[in-house]
Amino acid sequence: MSSNGDTVLVNGVETSSISVTDRGLAYGDGLFETLRVRDGQIPLWNYHKNRLQSGCQRLGIKLQLDLLEAELEQLLSPAAHAVTPNQLIKVIITRGSGKRGYSPEGVDNPTRILFCSDYAIPHPDCYHAGAAVRICATRLGTNPLLAGIKHLNRLEQVIARSEWSNEYAEGLMRDLRGHVVDGTMSSFFVVKGGQLLAADLSHSGVAGVMRNFILEHAERLGFIPQIRSLELEELFDAEEMFICNSVFGIWPVRLLVDDTGDLRTQTQWSSGFPVAKKFQSLVASTLFPQ
Amino acid sequence: MSSNGDTVLVNGVETSSISVTDRGLAYGDGLFETLRVRDGQIPLWNYHKNRLQSGCQRLGIKLQLDLLEAELEQLLSPAAHAVTPNQLIKVIITRGSGKRGYSPEGVDNPTRILFCSDYAIPHPDCYHAGAAVRICATRLGTNPLLAGIKHLNRLEQVIARSEWSNEYAEGLMRDLRGHVVDGTMSSFFVVKGGQLLAADLSHSGVAGVMRNFILEHAERLGFIPQIRSLELEELFDAEEMFICNSVFGIWPVRLLVDDTGDLRTQTQWSSGFPVAKKFQSLVASTLFPQ
Repeated sequence: MSSNGDTVLVNGVETSSISVTDRGLAYGDGLFETLRVRDGQIPLWNYHKNRLQSGCQRLGIKLQLDLLEAELEQLLSPAAHAVTPNQLIKVIITRGSGKRGYSPEGVDNPTRILFCSDYAIPHPDCYHAGAAVRICATRLGTNPLLAGIKHLNRLEQVIARSEWSNEYAEGLMRDLRGHVVDGTMSSFFVVKGGQLLAADLSHSGVAGVMRNFILEHAERLGFIPQIRSLELEELFDAEEMFICNSVFGIWPVRLLVDDTGDLRTQTQWSSGFPVAKKFQSLVASTLFPQ
Repeated sequence: MSSNGDTVLVNGVETSSISVTDRGLAYGDGLFETLRVRDGQIPLWNYHKNRLQSGCQRLGIKLQLDLLEAELEQLLSPAAHAVTPNQLIKVIITRGSGKRGYSPEGVDNPTRILFCSDYAIPHPDCYHAGAAVRICATRLGTNPLLAGIKHLNRLEQVIARSEWSNEYAEGLMRDLRGHVVDGTMSSFFVVKGGQLLAADLSHSGVAGVMRNFILEHAERLGFIPQIRSLELEELFDAEEMFICNSVFGIWPVRLLVDDTGDLRTQTQWSSGFPVAKKFQSLVASTLFPQ
């Protein structure tokens, strides 16, 4: 374990480097997951595992799940998490090292990279008071082939995230048609006419594991979620909005701002976020005690 | 220099690894160029440099061009290329190492990775006899933000290239509207009605340096190239086609096959490839003697 408390395993070996010939570097040829660890457990592991397996299948990468799970166990050992109950493990799976050229033929030794670090939630006030969220000028491209999976081709998110500094907790991205699809690092839900709405992800975006958890559990809270294309205007007119991911959980949106056009449009919510609070309680009782 | 004749420099230091925290790995947050070296020179360097600079500008990466050029000089020293006159240098520029999260704020120490290796052109028969080329089922997504630059988000090319093994020299990719945009690792030109046509790259594709060279020099050979959307049918009806990149130069297309639909469509050309040969001569006399 390094001096700052971080541990990195590459194919089970503690190291801080990977080969320059890794296709994760050359082409973004791989996938990742960011796991929140609580008291030595990964409450959403099954969701992460499903997405990772489905992504590997779509990219034709042979995930060695038994080795990955053994390495996670190693990082989750009591000694490893004794210092702090809150940790993050970022898992990167690449297709492995290869010779020159795009062809993945004969490249069948994937690289597993696990970063374990202590974790303090940024913007801790957002959980109760709500988050300030902006609309990004950067658009998501249209790519049904890669939509949904959490691959390493993330330049769109990098460029979108460079639009602001710390004045907002998150930015939402539209696709080329103007539909709002995804946050740069989170998913979002809209409450409208008492309905729970989530964005359609068939053309772009990442199928967030917390989004999946919420979709699967919504009925317990009296919602039949609708997944469809969402116009920007529908967000500004919403009764309530919240963003979510597997790391921070659920944050109500208190302010949504679009200053990408000639006029600044914004909506503030101060209703007490009743729907977001219900889902926060669900997450707190089943996954992450706050 | 390693035993197999390859040399890798990372920020000027011989090594075979990079930090696991490099954003090139995490997000494909960077760019690359593949330079053909001939007798210790990089004939298309100005074209590569321009594309790299423009890409870095679009991604907000501070390219240290003076350091990069010094490192290229080091690899091009007489001692380094004495063994073989044909070498390739692949240059990767990433935004550098960063902390967790997409924000590039404060990440201002880009990583320069230079791989120098001996080089034998694959499919050496294609130069004279022409290449067999297929139409890929994999489509290029639409992304004006990233179109043209040679960034590290290359999953589309990886997936397209996995469609075939060695029976074709290249595959051409269509966008979501069906327009043919780009090869997986090359650009293409179509000769039709005596006109030279190249694909529009404003929504996807890579602005190939050999493509740029040809566009700039076409008038010397009596062509005013047209850059526009190209339908698949136009390729099958063409008088001639050729593909090109900075490594293999120009290859006539002898066979174009589309077997992605219910019927197999194909065109064979056996005209002697007069236009491709003219451009090959131009390249041979100004850049790469064959």
